[in-house]
Amino acid sequence: MNVSIVGATGYGGMELIRFLNNHPQFKIKSLHTSSQFGRSLYEENAHLMHMKDTLEEIDPEAIAKKSDIVFLATPSGVSSQLISEFSDLDIKVIDLSGDLRLQTPGEYENWYKKPAAPQHIIEEAVYGLAEWNAEAIKKATIIANPGCYPTASLLGLAPLFTEGLAGADADVIIDAKSGVSGAGKSPSAVTHFSEMNENFKIYKVNQHQHIPEIEQQLGRWSSGLQPITFNTHLVPMTRGIMATMYIKVNRETSNVELKDLYETVYENHPFVRVQPLDRYPSTKQVYGSNFCDIGVDYDERTGKVTVVSVIDNLVKGAAGQAIQNANILMGLEETAGLWNSPLYP
Amino acid sequence: MNVSIVGATGYGGMELIRFLNNHPQFKIKSLHTSSQFGRSLYEENAHLMHMKDTLEEIDPEAIAKKSDIVFLATPSGVSSQLISEFSDLDIKVIDLSGDLRLQTPGEYENWYKKPAAPQHIIEEAVYGLAEWNAEAIKKATIIANPGCYPTASLLGLAPLFTEGLAGADADVIIDAKSGVSGAGKSPSAVTHFSEMNENFKIYKVNQHQHIPEIEQQLGRWSSGLQPITFNTHLVPMTRGIMATMYIKVNRETSNVELKDLYETVYENHPFVRVQPLDRYPSTKQVYGSNFCDIGVDYDERTGKVTVVSVIDNLVKGAAGQAIQNANILMGLEETAGLWNSPLYP
Amino acid sequence: MNVSIVGATGYGGMELIRFLNNHPQFKIKSLHTSSQFGRSLYEENAHLMHMKDTLEEIDPEAIAKKSDIVFLATPSGVSSQLISEFSDLDIKVIDLSGDLRLQTPGEYENWYKKPAAPQHIIEEAVYGLAEWNAEAIKKATIIANPGCYPTASLLGLAPLFTEGLAGADADVIIDAKSGVSGAGKSPSAVTHFSEMNENFKIYKVNQHQHIPEIEQQLGRWSSGLQPITFNTHLVPMTRGIMATMYIKVNRETSNVELKDLYETVYENHPFVRVQPLDRYPSTKQVYGSNFCDIGVDYDERTGKVTVVSVIDNLVKGAAGQAIQNANILMGLEETAGLWNSPLYP
Amino acid sequence: MNVSIVGATGYGGMELIRFLNNHPQFKIKSLHTSSQFGRSLYEENAHLMHMKDTLEEIDPEAIAKKSDIVFLATPSGVSSQLISEFSDLDIKVIDLSGDLRLQTPGEYENWYKKPAAPQHIIEEAVYGLAEWNAEAIKKATIIANPGCYPTASLLGLAPLFTEGLAGADADVIIDAKSGVSGAGKSPSAVTHFSEMNENFKIYKVNQHQHIPEIEQQLGRWSSGLQPITFNTHLVPMTRGIMATMYIKVNRETSNVELKDLYETVYENHPFVRVQPLDRYPSTKQVYGSNFCDIGVDYDERTGKVTVVSVIDNLVKGAAGQAIQNANILMGLEETAGLWNSPLYP
Repeated sequence: MNVSIVGATGYGGMELIRFLNNHPQFKIKSLHTSSQFGRSLYEENAHLMHMKDTLEEIDPEAIAKKSDIVFLATPSGVSSQLISEFSDLDIKVIDLSGDLRLQTPGEYENWYKKPAAPQHIIEEAVYGLAEWNAEAIKKATIIANPGCYPTASLLGLAPLFTEGLAGADADVIIDAKSGVSGAGKSPSAVTHFSEMNENFKIYKVNQHQHIPEIEQQLGRWSSGLQPITFNTHLVPMTRGIMATMYIKVNRETSNVELKDLYETVYENHPFVRVQPLDRYPSTKQVYGSNFCDIGVDYDERTGKVTVVSVIDNLVKGAAGQAIQNANILMGLEETAGLWNSPLYP
Repeated sequence: MNVSIVGATGYGGMELIRFLNNHPQFKIKSLHTSSQFGRSLYEENAHLMHMKDTLEEIDPEAIAKKSDIVFLATPSGVSSQLISEFSDLDIKVIDLSGDLRLQTPGEYENWYKKPAAPQHIIEEAVYGLAEWNAEAIKKATIIANPGCYPTASLLGLAPLFTEGLAGADADVIIDAKSGVSGAGKSPSAVTHFSEMNENFKIYKVNQHQHIPEIEQQLGRWSSGLQPITFNTHLVPMTRGIMATMYIKVNRETSNVELKDLYETVYENHPFVRVQPLDRYPSTKQVYGSNFCDIGVDYDERTGKVTVVSVIDNLVKGAAGQAIQNANILMGLEETAGLWNSPLYP
Repeated sequence: MNVSIVGATGYGGMELIRFLNNHPQFKIKSLHTSSQFGRSLYEENAHLMHMKDTLEEIDPEAIAKKSDIVFLATPSGVSSQLISEFSDLDIKVIDLSGDLRLQTPGEYENWYKKPAAPQHIIEEAVYGLAEWNAEAIKKATIIANPGCYPTASLLGLAPLFTEGLAGADADVIIDAKSGVSGAGKSPSAVTHFSEMNENFKIYKVNQHQHIPEIEQQLGRWSSGLQPITFNTHLVPMTRGIMATMYIKVNRETSNVELKDLYETVYENHPFVRVQPLDRYPSTKQVYGSNFCDIGVDYDERTGKVTVVSVIDNLVKGAAGQAIQNANILMGLEETAGLWNSPLYP
Repeated sequence: MNVSIVGATGYGGMELIRFLNNHPQFKIKSLHTSSQFGRSLYEENAHLMHMKDTLEEIDPEAIAKKSDIVFLATPSGVSSQLISEFSDLDIKVIDLSGDLRLQTPGEYENWYKKPAAPQHIIEEAVYGLAEWNAEAIKKATIIANPGCYPTASLLGLAPLFTEGLAGADADVIIDAKSGVSGAGKSPSAVTHFSEMNENFKIYKVNQHQHIPEIEQQLGRWSSGLQPITFNTHLVPMTRGIMATMYIKVNRETSNVELKDLYETVYENHPFVRVQPLDRYPSTKQVYGSNFCDIGVDYDERTGKVTVVSVIDNLVKGAAGQAIQNANILMGLEETAGLWNSPLYP
């Protein structure tokens, strides 16, 4: 099967290349960019020398003719424009941006401060939280690949809500931390090495655009959900997200019960690794891989559960989950091309 | 005035040396260590060459004869032994460890898993949270210098509790992050460079020994306080702590009101810098300095206040606050020897 | 074909696992360690959960029965003992340590300060510099996998010596820099995060044990070679080696001529990527991959050539080249299981 | 005495503020910038809140009226313009840029690719290598503060040349490494965190503009000096320079002789710390301080001396040495305001 990548020169696009390069079934047919077409990808990206070549312009019809799937690895505000051109063609679209995720009219404009994609296309888009939405993904034409923070958060919270331990009044607090690659490839004062190195920053306090995405999915599991608290920080490292989450549960529980519950829920999901009792994951243990590692603790003093969930923001939080969705969509093994060991150390 | 340092070779001890070196009133009279006495400090600590010299053994009587103040920069479990020897001598003691902070009998053993110091000495010790306890500090003989996390947390929480915006049911959640120097100077698997670099870790989940210290002080401001939630993480950087805190407040408020409140409370406290509206501190802006920078946000969606508080764990979280306490104790300007610009970038 | 790994818990061993996991022809049959057998590998190495399991003790006969190749990823001084036990068995051995590399009797003891392996076994060992010794490697029974620094240095220097631009009086100076993973997995004061972070260190000044290894191979290309100057530094990063090298050449040359020469020499060697004119490699562009990227400059002012060569110390400098050698040995495509994109960013 | 800073918002300017803040004799009278005047310095530089305030425009006459010394902490190409305006006024000028360092007409244009300052002003400027040019500095009106790399290199090389161990044919090779703050405050692709983190880069291969500055000063010590080889690298850290240098010496020597020679030469220079036998400096041991630490090794195998010299690029390599020069100029203790312990860890 052939695939094309639009936005090949960004961090998400190049991470798609890294994995698709070694995929047993998918073949990268073409790489597309809005600005540098005609050039070799490796000119500006020395790491890809001897591996991948020419960049082409974005021509949806031409892409649809040669590929079965197109990955849109473009910034917010671009897919919402491109999607109309692709939606009439015979090609599956997997969109890595936030443009097609929010179903409620008006929400996208509120949080992203940009015009939304056509509402009928948004409604057609299936939310690609792979472990929880596989049935819909199999039948999708357009997949809205989840955001990096929502992926880590939702995979960590899901068992509490779906198994009835937490409900509308869970008073969810998500304190999330990310490596700097999440901020993309464009230089800025915040991501200038001398400013970000030896620094730990909070940003978009109580205003991150991933809040409605998380609430939307939690709301599907728990009607009447109260607003959540969600904050994000930058860690002086390139890759990795940790979401530390605090949830009020309905009743007393124990670490053993919690671990069993999580293990049962994720039994057939090889990318989610529930940690052994009294172990909590670090971001490095998923570096460069599609794993989401989760640890859970019930604090008897407060009656709250602490959930710690880690992913690589560029893999399970972007390119990896996108390929996982492509695998599901095409009826392949979910792990095809993605079953690599994390980079260590 | 003369001062001596016990535990001069640890990170806390050497940070005391860095500041006391340039203090206008205090003169370092002697440096003490349990293991390397007779040697030059700079043999193992090349950065101090041309600056400080011989290490001496720990002889309380000799120390009390030559110095007015002794700083105990020793690990937990050492001060609790040494303190008895110093308590009968004519010398002020400032203890940087956790050994003299917890007033309730049994609490220390519960959380530190070690035998406590004699209870009458603990009761004599004054909690050295400089901005909030100056009157008692002035009259103290023994000062229990606060922990790094409690300093960042309590300075950030205090105005809400002392000014009545938050109470017993505030449901305080503190998600704290620290640079690796907080783990001290002894090599270990966790702090091995190749393991900790490009990594973000959570540790002591819901079990950190600073929990009772924070609750004890909050309880002085708000009787009947419910247990707090407190977690700690390691950031791949050397210095800096951020506490991100979530508090349920009694009534609606606004960012303008909060900023005014914090500014008023800390008006005469030059080391606490309330950030301008819509600004939140990063750890680097206090690097190497005694500042505690605080930003506040009221989230209308949830009715919670987010407080972001940053310090340098080795300065305001240890050596700097210890010197600030020594200044107060000796009737000097609070800022004497401490009014330096943070290292930037 | 089946392979076994001795020393599976070290950084080299786990890097072998990472690649062999996805190798099309080799199957990891067993993992061995001297101390933790019977346990699961992932207990201490959380990143391998769901991937690899039980550790076994080191039993050469049992290993030879089930595997075609054994990789010895053990520290210096271990292979020299183990090798005798393996050398009589029907199994190919690829040794990643320095124990079998130095052919001249006495050299190993001089530089490693340990007893050498039996001289007849050393003489049987083939030096596994894959791009330059493939014919001998194909026929080898025991392969001495090159050191990390020698690999970067020799691949960068080779064309100058083999093509006659440099000779015995080239006055070679190699100033090498390495990420900290080269120091292995054992915690120490030097590799303690708070000491190594924001630090750049030189070590083993003019005394590194890789000096004779580099001279031995250069001497094969240029008889009568003068002693080289070689120094090594630690960079505050986990992976990557850069060798910056200064060579007096026999005659005037130009950057165009040099680039052509290098491209010709490495034409059929896909892992060596000669950089375009006026481009010089950074370590990150080979991160996690088996590439060696090389840039060259002729300085008209001094008549010297500067060669810049980068590798990932754990891949091309250890596990990757070992697998490349195994591929050659077994008659496979040299790139089998190794043709992955570097991790970026 | 009053001082003013032009270019107060750059890294060099803010480092001047950090030290001058606590200087016993100098008082910062005014801060100047070309673009943000009227604003508070701390608006963009949160670390200076409660410390320094208003930025003013650059008015040389007004500056000369209120200050005894002006520090020009502006980028290359700015001082060359400003200097004419200051040179007729009654004020001492210390220029931190490279604009006034190269005495030979044409050299500046060759290497900096910009128009030079008026030649008569360049000739008036005294090269401020504090340990070696104090007599001229005392009488100077304009001081050209040395570059960061030249400072580390020249302090390390000086004793060999001034004491006759090395001469014109010393074949000097300087392999230099710097923290990223040397690249200044403007964001760029090279200094983008995700690109520079976990990376080690070489730049300006054989073309760095500090080459003629080093050669000019070496030439004063050794006539007929052959061109030197000089290369520079970026280390993924914020501060610190190491110059690793290789020099052919005239005769056999020993580490003991070398150490004695260096200690004698630098006996009365407290900021230069010759390391004990067999010790070599790391950049971190001078972090944030004005020290230059030097280690030396004679390699009997090659007959070359290796000199390792480290500084903090922003202190001894810029602001610190500028203040040291101001101290000398004004007849103060050389160490006034600069005698602080390096930040550790």
